[in-house]
Amino acid sequence: MNTSIEKLLEAAGLPDNFDAFLRRVMKTLRGSDASGPDAALALIIAPGENTPGFDLAENFTLEEHARLLEISRGKRKLPEELISAGIDGAGTGGCLLARPGAGRERAAVKRLLTAAAKAISGRLSYEDRERLLTRERDTADATTHLEEVFLSLPEITMEEASRTVLDEARRLTNSPFGFAGHIEPATGHLHIPTLTDNVWKDCRVKKKNFIFKEFNGLWGWVLKNKKPLLTNTAAADPRSGGVPAGHIKISSFLAVPALAGENVLGILALANSPAGYNKADLETARKLARVYSLILKNKLAESRKAAEEQKYRSLLDTLNDLVCNLGPDGRILYVRKRNEITEAFGGSDLRRMRGATNEHTGGL
Amino acid sequence: MNTSIEKLLEAAGLPDNFDAFLRRVMKTLRGSDASGPDAALALIIAPGENTPGFDLAENFTLEEHARLLEISRGKRKLPEELISAGIDGAGTGGCLLARPGAGRERAAVKRLLTAAAKAISGRLSYEDRERLLTRERDTADATTHLEEVFLSLPEITMEEASRTVLDEARRLTNSPFGFAGHIEPATGHLHIPTLTDNVWKDCRVKKKNFIFKEFNGLWGWVLKNKKPLLTNTAAADPRSGGVPAGHIKISSFLAVPALAGENVLGILALANSPAGYNKADLETARKLARVYSLILKNKLAESRKAAEEQKYRSLLDTLNDLVCNLGPDGRILYVRKRNEITEAFGGSDLRRMRGATNEHTGGL
Repeated sequence: MNTSIEKLLEAAGLPDNFDAFLRRVMKTLRGSDASGPDAALALIIAPGENTPGFDLAENFTLEEHARLLEISRGKRKLPEELISAGIDGAGTGGCLLARPGAGRERAAVKRLLTAAAKAISGRLSYEDRERLLTRERDTADATTHLEEVFLSLPEITMEEASRTVLDEARRLTNSPFGFAGHIEPATGHLHIPTLTDNVWKDCRVKKKNFIFKEFNGLWGWVLKNKKPLLTNTAAADPRSGGVPAGHIKISSFLAVPALAGENVLGILALANSPAGYNKADLETARKLARVYSLILKNKLAESRKAAEEQKYRSLLDTLNDLVCNLGPDGRILYVRKRNEITEAFGGSDLRRMRGATNEHTGGL
Repeated sequence: MNTSIEKLLEAAGLPDNFDAFLRRVMKTLRGSDASGPDAALALIIAPGENTPGFDLAENFTLEEHARLLEISRGKRKLPEELISAGIDGAGTGGCLLARPGAGRERAAVKRLLTAAAKAISGRLSYEDRERLLTRERDTADATTHLEEVFLSLPEITMEEASRTVLDEARRLTNSPFGFAGHIEPATGHLHIPTLTDNVWKDCRVKKKNFIFKEFNGLWGWVLKNKKPLLTNTAAADPRSGGVPAGHIKISSFLAVPALAGENVLGILALANSPAGYNKADLETARKLARVYSLILKNKLAESRKAAEEQKYRSLLDTLNDLVCNLGPDGRILYVRKRNEITEAFGGSDLRRMRGATNEHTGGL
């Protein structure tokens, strides 16, 4: 007993991962004098928001094991011959169960199980916190990567930026499908250059470069309401619909708008994560969508600058012809005051010119 | 002994913070039968990169305590009457020390201390990892905040953005002083609107709105080399210097350039964190500087757009005068072809105009 508890304490301090820690605890209990070598042992933990489940039974029959699972869910009463100690932490729980070996003292086994269960509960909470923090760290690394790409490649296109955002989002949320698209300011249409390649392998919709003029279904709801959406029962969601015929079946869906204040710049959407989506996935998508917003805002400012330049330049190009003609030595370009020109042309000349110009421009 | 180990195991599973956990361990050892109520106990842990130090001694005299600190640092041999167990983890370490009570079994005390030291070592590693992850989370929250501010307040000025970046950086790195500034693209000068207010309280330099034309000292090195700089011996650093007379004394210094590829857009600098700066601080500053780069890049694109517009508009304004004079009904604005104009003016008129214009523009 004494040695077992010491071993448990040692296990608690080792840098094992969660699974290895639980197996080490089971091994310690199995080797304990208190329960005996012929004892039956089980450790069952339900999956939590950020922690995996665990289920290991030794010296129990398959049938007994099935009953233990029901006991651990509170659906069946604990048989008298079994001893149990509850595990609780990180919004989930489970239990350690034992049938002591022949002639063993039940109180000693209970004490050992209770000590182990407390250590496991502590580790469960720690595991939950660490996994959440690690996920946040991975997300921060992904946004860092996106920012780096965008800052170091000034010529990156909207399409490449969208694809990079989508790649990171799919990786972090374990999503087989997704898209990242931006709203074209001139038209208000959604441009999606980044539908995952495997969408198209699995999907019989022919047209592969989408421009959406109307916003339908789940993603349409996100764009119209400027709010994120998370559902693990996508097909049954009343907001669903509008999926083109031949499209892949969507089971779980997570989408976040890329906003700048009240302006919708784009959308990041993910689908069909095998385990469904949770709060941590939503937070990840939010953070990536925020960086996506920054990139889109930047790209829009750049393209507005280019459009502005183009607009004025084409006007000037037209006008330069006129100016150069007036001053073939180039000097007249520097004329700044209206009076100088009117005086230069003189009253009667101005009248003549006006008539001539009207004639030559066809009365436009 | 048995109960003590169980209590230690329980302590390992409790969600106590690091300090509370260590005190609980000490309390458990103090109450243990193995060491006895008259035992003297000490727990000494050196500060790590991300973990605080700890130093608690009971039933030792002040003089003995001072010697224990030297023992824990390996500078003095362990006296024979003391029992010790080493603590090791997270790049730091320490020890548990005990002088057993009268008539106690030394082996039992050694065993207890060793078990406790292992649990503490495990917790130390966990604490280090958790503190690092928490720091990363806090940094990610700060960058999220900056991105939110920037995205939701489109009218935010470069000055306000710089100040917000600096505020977050100072808070996270515990820095009393710092500045965030941007390079004005037209001049290449560094503009610093964000020198912390308390710099000026403590500083007798009069001029409070700095524009730096030459890049000197530590921050100048960062801008010139496009690399971060971290020093906890700032005054002795050969790159130091160029601090204006009357400036506050800089002990520790951390600065990161805000880069877009190879372009330096600005700088984030921090100084005089009481504990000095470490790798985690550098990482925090890097991440904030990256968001700062994104914001500066965006602001620059916007101001280039505005400048572009202004440039062409002022040119057009000039030209419009001319054009409007030529075509008071506005129609001549639409003339597109050079021939039409030259024909409209005719050969002799063009010669006359040229002479007149030269005269009126003073031969320019």
